Amino acid sequence: MRSSYRDVDTILASFIVAFVLMVIGALPALAQEPLPSWNDTAAKSRIMDFVKATVTEGGERYVAPEDRIAVFDNDGTLWTEQPYYIQLGFILDRVKTLAPEHPEWKTKEPFKSVLEGDLKGLAKGGEMGIVELGMATHAGMTTDHFNTIVTDWFTTAKHPETGKLYTEMTYLPMRELLDYLRANGFKTYIVSGGGVEFMRPVTEKLYGIPPEQVVGSTITTEFAIVDDVPVLNRLPKIDFVDDGPGKPVGINKFIGRKPIFVAGNSDGDYEMLRWAAAAKPPGFAMIVHHTDGVREYAYDRQSSFGKLDKALDEAELRNWLVVDMKNDWKKIFAFNQ
Amino acid sequence: MRSSYRDVDTILASFIVAFVLMVIGALPALAQEPLPSWNDTAAKSRIMDFVKATVTEGGERYVAPEDRIAVFDNDGTLWTEQPYYIQLGFILDRVKTLAPEHPEWKTKEPFKSVLEGDLKGLAKGGEMGIVELGMATHAGMTTDHFNTIVTDWFTTAKHPETGKLYTEMTYLPMRELLDYLRANGFKTYIVSGGGVEFMRPVTEKLYGIPPEQVVGSTITTEFAIVDDVPVLNRLPKIDFVDDGPGKPVGINKFIGRKPIFVAGNSDGDYEMLRWAAAAKPPGFAMIVHHTDGVREYAYDRQSSFGKLDKALDEAELRNWLVVDMKNDWKKIFAFNQ
Repeated sequence: MRSSYRDVDTILASFIVAFVLMVIGALPALAQEPLPSWNDTAAKSRIMDFVKATVTEGGERYVAPEDRIAVFDNDGTLWTEQPYYIQLGFILDRVKTLAPEHPEWKTKEPFKSVLEGDLKGLAKGGEMGIVELGMATHAGMTTDHFNTIVTDWFTTAKHPETGKLYTEMTYLPMRELLDYLRANGFKTYIVSGGGVEFMRPVTEKLYGIPPEQVVGSTITTEFAIVDDVPVLNRLPKIDFVDDGPGKPVGINKFIGRKPIFVAGNSDGDYEMLRWAAAAKPPGFAMIVHHTDGVREYAYDRQSSFGKLDKALDEAELRNWLVVDMKNDWKKIFAFNQ
Repeated sequence: MRSSYRDVDTILASFIVAFVLMVIGALPALAQEPLPSWNDTAAKSRIMDFVKATVTEGGERYVAPEDRIAVFDNDGTLWTEQPYYIQLGFILDRVKTLAPEHPEWKTKEPFKSVLEGDLKGLAKGGEMGIVELGMATHAGMTTDHFNTIVTDWFTTAKHPETGKLYTEMTYLPMRELLDYLRANGFKTYIVSGGGVEFMRPVTEKLYGIPPEQVVGSTITTEFAIVDDVPVLNRLPKIDFVDDGPGKPVGINKFIGRKPIFVAGNSDGDYEMLRWAAAAKPPGFAMIVHHTDGVREYAYDRQSSFGKLDKALDEAELRNWLVVDMKNDWKKIFAFNQ
């Protein structure tokens, strides 16, 4: 039966509505300029030029989607690392929480300094002191229990100077960069010296990066069956340090591909930044340079917990992008006006 | 301007054509029955029931797509492991290839036995002999060089008994199972005792599993800069053994999620099979049981390189599916008639 004119009109209208809705659905991606929190400086255009060349089929610098691996340091690259690493903030809080069960800590370093809020005293104990605190707060429980502790902590823990939740201390321009890369077919990873099980509970929410795309330092775990339930126990023993020369090692071990986009902010990222050049065609390397003492922190070559020296010295020679947070970013945090 | 009747017809027709093409595009996935190389036995229905429950929104056993992690052992689960592991086939070939550079091997065990084709003599040297061969053939080069050696080897290396390329020795029903799981939103991983860098060059081609979804044993690598080029050198030192209790450890370390589907074929998979029950809701565990001495190999509880004993004993108690290769599979290899 041939439809009446009215019927045809109705069917046509519904097809048009469906089509218009489809187009509207695709619009936001087209309408929104990428990297809105970046100023229109050379940094932004260098990044965008690289990405455009990467996705241009037939071009000399085209890279197939499966090889578009982007890796990001976390502390100081995706979220703030001042006045101390967020994971150290966790350690300090945990020592205070656990103190009632450990009366001996009142008189025993490095715990004593932590309980007295004496960060200078803590610093005197050096790296070994921090490792001891790390083991006391990160081991001796199952992986499930640790996950719960970390997840709970992040719901309320606040940055000691801004008073904002730690989860608000991520850099908005870097989150936009992650989104922009993913929109162009990149797979984004974190490659951090931080503990992998400290980051995994929050990276999806903060950065859109799922647990399996987080590479980090690990402590040894051991399989056990307790009351017929399989568990993994976290032991007080370092398994792998994902820092400095450990970063390319970690990338190779966990990912098994060479990254074509590498972002860091310290000499702990130097070897991984060099690793970007190992890809074919060579990848893009960038350094987040902390130049904004008003909106964040200004620390050039030396900070309390690391330095940016060799990487900065060689950046020009190796054509690495140095992002000047003060001049290249409109906003640093989402809560900035 | 109001369209004429003819115009309306034309527009309508083109919308209908677009719509029909869209539907046709979706058809192949619907038309093909999953798991065509599986017989219609209980094994197939148990797998399909689990997958259907997993993807049924609102159901008690529904699992969100991001948590649909499926892990597969490789040797004896995805490809044949008889008369010896394929990676041992690689080792044997490499020793022969490298022998001219090592005249001392002619008289030195375990190399002597390999060069004389004396596998029994090799077996006498036990695990330490195999480790020594492994180090002599897997270390002392960059990761890039090793990748090239492995990739090249797989293009021509043949199974010693079937004469087929090793790359043809994968189990067709298992490849269909991988496809079926992926079509239902699962992310598929290999979790094998084999060397991760031995598998990664071929897993995408053989199983549709990319390098970053392969978890395996690792040897230590070290970052170096040689003639201003960054490389990773493979050292003769074992870093991590991804077997037995190491499998849940490896899953937690590399993936950071609990699998809801676990497949293995030996006691080396026992702990990982148990790990399936750690997910919420509990996951599915299956054992590939080698029962077909005609089309593949029949070895029940004991093989030359491992055993299936504890896992088989507990399978019924724990409701693990035991797949009987002879009865549950129509075909084993794609080259079977």
